[in-house]
Amino acid sequence: MENTVKREILRIVGNEVEKVEDTVVTEYAVTVKINQEEFVTMVCTPEYVEDMVIGYLASERVIKGYDDIERIWHQEKEGFVHVKTKKVNPYFQQMQNKRYITSCCGASRQGFVFANDALVAKKMEEVHVTVTPDDCYRLMKEMQNSAAVFQETGGVHNAALCDKNGIVLSRMDIGRHNALDKIYGYCLRNNISMQDKIIVFSGRISSEILLKVSKIGCEIVLSKSAPTELALELADNLGITTVGFIRKDAMNVYTHEKRIQLQNER
Amino acid sequence: MENTVKREILRIVGNEVEKVEDTVVTEYAVTVKINQEEFVTMVCTPEYVEDMVIGYLASERVIKGYDDIERIWHQEKEGFVHVKTKKVNPYFQQMQNKRYITSCCGASRQGFVFANDALVAKKMEEVHVTVTPDDCYRLMKEMQNSAAVFQETGGVHNAALCDKNGIVLSRMDIGRHNALDKIYGYCLRNNISMQDKIIVFSGRISSEILLKVSKIGCEIVLSKSAPTELALELADNLGITTVGFIRKDAMNVYTHEKRIQLQNER
Repeated sequence: MENTVKREILRIVGNEVEKVEDTVVTEYAVTVKINQEEFVTMVCTPEYVEDMVIGYLASERVIKGYDDIERIWHQEKEGFVHVKTKKVNPYFQQMQNKRYITSCCGASRQGFVFANDALVAKKMEEVHVTVTPDDCYRLMKEMQNSAAVFQETGGVHNAALCDKNGIVLSRMDIGRHNALDKIYGYCLRNNISMQDKIIVFSGRISSEILLKVSKIGCEIVLSKSAPTELALELADNLGITTVGFIRKDAMNVYTHEKRIQLQNER
Repeated sequence: MENTVKREILRIVGNEVEKVEDTVVTEYAVTVKINQEEFVTMVCTPEYVEDMVIGYLASERVIKGYDDIERIWHQEKEGFVHVKTKKVNPYFQQMQNKRYITSCCGASRQGFVFANDALVAKKMEEVHVTVTPDDCYRLMKEMQNSAAVFQETGGVHNAALCDKNGIVLSRMDIGRHNALDKIYGYCLRNNISMQDKIIVFSGRISSEILLKVSKIGCEIVLSKSAPTELALELADNLGITTVGFIRKDAMNVYTHEKRIQLQNER
């Protein structure tokens, strides 16, 4: 299946009408079956679908790692990914989307909404990687340059896993989380260490995106766009450095500035 | 609860660092309980929350309309919306997210992913409303001007219900669908007819957004951004006019151009 299709549309400029061929991004629905049981349906861009499923299942704590999977296969035309597990969290069906309620007042003070997230999110206390503002501007530019489908269609989100030298892995998807799940799944499959890595993201940093970064195990997230307050609360608590609104040569540092190395400190 | 909060951040331009006060958008998690049973947790901007829940329940066909609700109340601090129904779809728990499988090949030819959607989506065969390109440019500009929180924070999506004269109702949310659910819920509560209305939207038109427009009962959707191919297939089949990439005085008409009235046809 292709990531984009051609389509004849009416292009109107002012009141002038022209029939033109346009490129539109595909949207693909895939249902995940775990040991033959239907688990979830994901709507995504149809590439790296198995990686996405692996990343999703690990971040939902259905599996602990790639080793828990015996076999995974994709029936592309029918729209299924089948996962046969060696080991699976016995409570995963019940835990999915179960509200995380602390004893104090109903709303979690740590900002976790779901029980799973509180278990899987990793706290980043140390500093394994730092970036200068120039690193941030450069990595954002590289990520955007690598995002060919977005430039063509305007319809997808882009995420890149970087180290200080540049992009290690770049993925795109119509779904914000999917792009990160594709990165996570690939890294689990290929045993890539996350400790010195940075996530660069085109979209907004919501609490879900921040949690995904934490589950993946990265200490720094760079975004072109805005964060939410709940995401920043989580970032404060989980020790993640959050940088937003990276545009050309300006940016906002929201949390844990200890990983931002200012030029005059060198 | 406020829609935004103030936060002290580091603003970096080039390598110059300054501590400034920034405005960040709130993200609020609310769990919906139907007749005391937990149904879903929604993450949203904390205004018009009850309308959002009503719109969501109607578009998921849990209820048929506002009359099916006996009482709805919001425990804001605790993060719950309680719904007591007079009538509720007896199958709603089972139907939620149940994959829609046609007999032919596993993937629905009409583009429906979920069983519910095939039941609730309305087919728009007639033409009750038309717009000129100038109407589209003007309505998009009005919607953007009304979107104060977005301009301040860059963190939300905006949707407006319009007629040809301008905006009837404008809602924003960090979640794309929530903004439309807030509009839908308000209209159900206040018995507002959708037949001559237009949805104007800041975000991309995915299949979920297109289905939402159809369930709400609007014939035209205008977006600043890109559609997906699956959304356009659905729009083709459901009879909805889709216009995307409305920027200043240019736009793309993707489906059912019969509702676009060109100036020289007048």
